[in-house]
Amino acid sequence: MITDRLIEKIINMQNPTVVGLDPRMKFIPEHIKKSSFEKYGNTPKAVADSFLAFNKVIIDSVYDIVPAVKPQVAMYEMLGECGIECFINTIKYAKEKGLIVIGDVKRGDITSTAEAYSNGHIGKVQAGSEQYEIYGEDYITVNPYLGSDSVEPYIKDCRQYEKGLFVLVKTSNPNSGELQNLDCGGKLLYEKVGELVEKWGESLRGKHGYSAVGAVVGATHPAEAEKLRKIMPHTFFLVPGYGAQGGKAEDLTVCFDKEGLGAIINSSRGIIAAYTKAPYNERYSEKEFGDAARQAAADMKADLRRCI
Amino acid sequence: MITDRLIEKIINMQNPTVVGLDPRMKFIPEHIKKSSFEKYGNTPKAVADSFLAFNKVIIDSVYDIVPAVKPQVAMYEMLGECGIECFINTIKYAKEKGLIVIGDVKRGDITSTAEAYSNGHIGKVQAGSEQYEIYGEDYITVNPYLGSDSVEPYIKDCRQYEKGLFVLVKTSNPNSGELQNLDCGGKLLYEKVGELVEKWGESLRGKHGYSAVGAVVGATHPAEAEKLRKIMPHTFFLVPGYGAQGGKAEDLTVCFDKEGLGAIINSSRGIIAAYTKAPYNERYSEKEFGDAARQAAADMKADLRRCI
Repeated sequence: MITDRLIEKIINMQNPTVVGLDPRMKFIPEHIKKSSFEKYGNTPKAVADSFLAFNKVIIDSVYDIVPAVKPQVAMYEMLGECGIECFINTIKYAKEKGLIVIGDVKRGDITSTAEAYSNGHIGKVQAGSEQYEIYGEDYITVNPYLGSDSVEPYIKDCRQYEKGLFVLVKTSNPNSGELQNLDCGGKLLYEKVGELVEKWGESLRGKHGYSAVGAVVGATHPAEAEKLRKIMPHTFFLVPGYGAQGGKAEDLTVCFDKEGLGAIINSSRGIIAAYTKAPYNERYSEKEFGDAARQAAADMKADLRRCI
Repeated sequence: MITDRLIEKIINMQNPTVVGLDPRMKFIPEHIKKSSFEKYGNTPKAVADSFLAFNKVIIDSVYDIVPAVKPQVAMYEMLGECGIECFINTIKYAKEKGLIVIGDVKRGDITSTAEAYSNGHIGKVQAGSEQYEIYGEDYITVNPYLGSDSVEPYIKDCRQYEKGLFVLVKTSNPNSGELQNLDCGGKLLYEKVGELVEKWGESLRGKHGYSAVGAVVGATHPAEAEKLRKIMPHTFFLVPGYGAQGGKAEDLTVCFDKEGLGAIINSSRGIIAAYTKAPYNERYSEKEFGDAARQAAADMKADLRRCI
């Protein structure tokens, strides 16, 4: 059961951190860019090639101290087919290193379409007489706006293939309250969504009490996270917004249960681009971006452990 | 301005229909499957190859009688990189034939991520010193759950590249009301979203009065569509749910304005898989699936024109 596996990795490493693999050209060191652009010219293929080389170094640098990575598909999808190939190869490489992979895809569509997304990302796809695992993420993120029937196909595949979901409940962006905090007869929209997510996971709970249907709960809204922790006692949280977006470790205490479990905190730029920023840019050269990422991940672990 | 172009095509063809290009193996005629699987074996590449061959025949059969097509990215994305290549080639082929292309991608993410989606789908992507149009849709669909800052990057690209959006407001699926019809202090959630969408399009209106920021409004909820037509007088509707999902032409009258404009109605299975169903399966062989699609599109046009 995937959430049990995630929790056991968190306990073993004493680290509830997920590293966001959101590569951007401005983060890619010169020596990697040079090599990829020499091979493929000024093309999307060169960009994708540099992303994969970059990701592999990051993964090599953190796989033994963090339990999971979260590639953001938009960074890859924007490049077309070569980007998707890079996304798939990133997932494959991370899984070979024993990492749990959360595909940050935020898909949401009607049932028949959700089945296609689900089969591709966390299930299997039929091609003639053969079945293929195409993306192979352990978890994906999904959007709840269309309601229960839009989430059911994923839940079916979670059961069949021991996979998991994180459903958007309260996001980390500045305007997240515009719809999510609307008052729906005494309860706010995100609380209503939280209740649904808790229910969707009911039949998929593991031995640690948490279900395979998790929730995205932004670190930038600690008061809301505290309410959601109560509404969703069996729902594991994926928490974006720490670091670059302004969320602080102190604010995250409310996401965890009494045993210090129940949440995994994401950092993307703060780890993968650590070499570009103080204090890491003073200690690490551009070529040592992997070491800088490892140190930033270790520092984040210490920062979180101070508070949980 | 894209919505002006769409409206002018609708007027010229007297047909507010968009054909949904959602290929599935069960719709692909034997002779196409045979050819693709002989080339590529039982692989996702063979499936993608058959989808492209299928789509080209459908496009050839309808491009002069319908103004637009709407490929659903999930059907392609599920196949991995070869599926994305097929999606891009489908868009390219449809645009070469003069069709307006609505990419049904329903993306929704925080600002920095939305920029990546937007650049890839309706903007341009930088690769070294070169810029590329990667997907090249004219419109894409987006999900509003994250709020205004998650939609702004697309609106910026709509302005810069003369592209358009359709934002999910009220979807066609059975459980769409679970969140979308929650009462938020006298207004339902989808009405609140409708007000936002009307506002997002304010500065992007064309000469026909409709903006580049449209709304997805399901055909399966005529009473709601009627309310939304009033809340959103400058918002063009993309209407799914006609035919296979149960929406009837009579119910759609409310989506249109006094001039019979203001909406485009989608049909996917009803047109592309017409050859599998009565009455078309009696008149057309499997190899004539393109002719069946053309006839179904003509029949849909007549059905709609009867009511608007």
